[in-house]
Amino acid sequence: MRSADPHHVSPRYAQLTQRIAGEGASAWNIHFRAKARQARGEDVIILSVGDPDFDTPPSIVDAAVDSLRRGVTHYADVQGKQALRERIAAYHRAHGGQPETSADHVAVLAGAQCGLYATAQCLLDPGDEVIIPEPAYVTYEAVVQSTGAVPVWVSLPPDEGFQPRPADIEAAITPRTKAILINSPHNPTGQCLTPAMWETIATLCRKHDLWLIVDAVYADLIFDGEHLSPDSLPGMAERTVVISSLSKSHAMTGWRLGWVVGPRPLMAHLVNLALCMLYGCQPFIQDAAIAAFDAPPAALDMMRETYRQRRDAVVDTLRDSETVATLPPAAGMFMMIDIRATGLSTHAFADRLLDEHGVSVLAGEAFGASAAGFVRLSLTVDADRLREACRRIERCAQECQGESRLAARPLDGMTS
Amino acid sequence: MRSADPHHVSPRYAQLTQRIAGEGASAWNIHFRAKARQARGEDVIILSVGDPDFDTPPSIVDAAVDSLRRGVTHYADVQGKQALRERIAAYHRAHGGQPETSADHVAVLAGAQCGLYATAQCLLDPGDEVIIPEPAYVTYEAVVQSTGAVPVWVSLPPDEGFQPRPADIEAAITPRTKAILINSPHNPTGQCLTPAMWETIATLCRKHDLWLIVDAVYADLIFDGEHLSPDSLPGMAERTVVISSLSKSHAMTGWRLGWVVGPRPLMAHLVNLALCMLYGCQPFIQDAAIAAFDAPPAALDMMRETYRQRRDAVVDTLRDSETVATLPPAAGMFMMIDIRATGLSTHAFADRLLDEHGVSVLAGEAFGASAAGFVRLSLTVDADRLREACRRIERCAQECQGESRLAARPLDGMTS
Repeated sequence: MRSADPHHVSPRYAQLTQRIAGEGASAWNIHFRAKARQARGEDVIILSVGDPDFDTPPSIVDAAVDSLRRGVTHYADVQGKQALRERIAAYHRAHGGQPETSADHVAVLAGAQCGLYATAQCLLDPGDEVIIPEPAYVTYEAVVQSTGAVPVWVSLPPDEGFQPRPADIEAAITPRTKAILINSPHNPTGQCLTPAMWETIATLCRKHDLWLIVDAVYADLIFDGEHLSPDSLPGMAERTVVISSLSKSHAMTGWRLGWVVGPRPLMAHLVNLALCMLYGCQPFIQDAAIAAFDAPPAALDMMRETYRQRRDAVVDTLRDSETVATLPPAAGMFMMIDIRATGLSTHAFADRLLDEHGVSVLAGEAFGASAAGFVRLSLTVDADRLREACRRIERCAQECQGESRLAARPLDGMTS
Repeated sequence: MRSADPHHVSPRYAQLTQRIAGEGASAWNIHFRAKARQARGEDVIILSVGDPDFDTPPSIVDAAVDSLRRGVTHYADVQGKQALRERIAAYHRAHGGQPETSADHVAVLAGAQCGLYATAQCLLDPGDEVIIPEPAYVTYEAVVQSTGAVPVWVSLPPDEGFQPRPADIEAAITPRTKAILINSPHNPTGQCLTPAMWETIATLCRKHDLWLIVDAVYADLIFDGEHLSPDSLPGMAERTVVISSLSKSHAMTGWRLGWVVGPRPLMAHLVNLALCMLYGCQPFIQDAAIAAFDAPPAALDMMRETYRQRRDAVVDTLRDSETVATLPPAAGMFMMIDIRATGLSTHAFADRLLDEHGVSVLAGEAFGASAAGFVRLSLTVDADRLREACRRIERCAQECQGESRLAARPLDGMTS
């Protein structure tokens, strides 16, 4: 029988299981808790995950349906359909990428998360170091550690708008450094690297012979400015890997389709890995992605504009707050709220905000020590709900601030 | 620019890239060559891949379409939808599995290949040994080696119907052995383990504290007899992992949906891995799988019966051959043909069969040394085409046999 006896021991698990079980894996607990309460009919505003509240545009769904009805349900090319890889190469070139990028520089994988994981497997050896600015997306630690490599965190200072300091990155480089992992536009802060910063990082990569791994999944959700892809900088195409997907820009999170753009030898390695890890991606989903590239639905601009308006709604609602402050994002669907004035840890604040005020956000510490004092909210409910969420955040923050002032004040009669 | 200069050097790739680049990855080359010729309009009979020639039954497609139209396109539960995991648990129990299996013992992953890969990551450390009977499915080597573990091959003797010898398995066990990986029904041979053999292997696993990893993807395509799942044997539930999918039984290869059944702690580890490797499987595909379980289409029995008839067509067509012999499979969609009488290596035979006779099969050596002298053909074209393929195989074999006899005969006038 399947034993319920806790003393019953299975054979040992791999050490990898310890390396992927960090903070990142538990970061979602508060989200799962909020979902459970919402499922019970409670008034919970869920701002803890980057899942668009839009459904996938109908024209993309239609393409998948057509393909399914035509029986496109068999194994696909393990590297990805040629026609899709050509579109991805064109998309990459149009988004500031290396002009000579072709379908041969593209591999299709089961989402950007899978693309990042597969890239890490092909680049990183045990003991290698990977420099990652933090706060950082919560899965990066597990991805890097799954290979036996070590993440080396470099602080993004909150009081400098979470922008990296080149000197800090260079100071973190050692003979074991193998790669720098950059996410721009950035989750959780919504900030973008400046062209000058990309140049600086590229220079460091060339000088120290490093890989530059770029997570660019929010590149199509920039409100102001243009995306830059560093593989177009001199000497960078052979050492840059860019990972992206349509999940965020096209409201296709559940479709699990992403890609990796990089040097040809990497593609050969990714195909070998995909042969034993995935054996290809769903051909009807690839057809939907082709349709998404060929006829970008008008809905895309609407979605980007909606995220911008929601960002502005949060900024407006909290503008006069004396307890919390906003850091307006330049891109994406997330926003950092500074709750340092409350005196609480952000885990404690996030727990209380969910338990007593019915709003779920993620604690900044889940993304790294430098985001202590901030919570991340997702712009994934409409502006009215966001304003209501902001009022609850403000109320919760004021209560916390009041209580911590009270706790800090010596009690009467105890001070003699 | 993306350099075409072969002397241009990227930073180093991970050592893993060497461990996943073995014979297995190149086994498919002949298949890709055959597909390319077919695409050019040539008369090629492709028997080199296990992709059913049936489309997915319409009722399953309908369920996916309904789900897509209802906007079920967002992130799903990373372990898999509860409703699907309940169906998989019931399916597992009905297929001879441990009677107490519940949804908590199931993780849904992107195909059985992905399930096997993820299981290997969670069980195997570098230097661990995994005993695998060979011939074996071509990806096993890369899957095991991706973890740094070492496959230890145990021969399945062709002249004993490719059944394992318990003494050989026991002799292969060392203090480094961590697991035994069994595929039954077996690819490439189509043979099934007997209940007595399962008992023997289970005893070895208990005695030496080993994991038993079972690839059971052909369990629903058994022509005669019943499938046995070893987690139902005493003391085995806590050390057995069973991997399966609907790909083969339901003609759903391109849907990339599979599962792992095993002890609860393994599920927690698989979820942590899936968080950083996949972030869940497509919810609309999971809905299609639920529909497949709830209302098994009549087409399933038809497909199994069709594979059986095709097996019989091959056996009948080659019954009187003096150059090739068949090993009738008890299950699945593959069949081994003994071409040892031709005197050729099976790689040479397979190349010639494709180049001169337009039939693609896989060389036995691709599956392991013990299958030298055999080629694997897929029962994935209709019986008439299979008979034509058999006639071409027979013709090719006779030519080869004639030439090797000629080569072996001393030339006149050279023997004084």
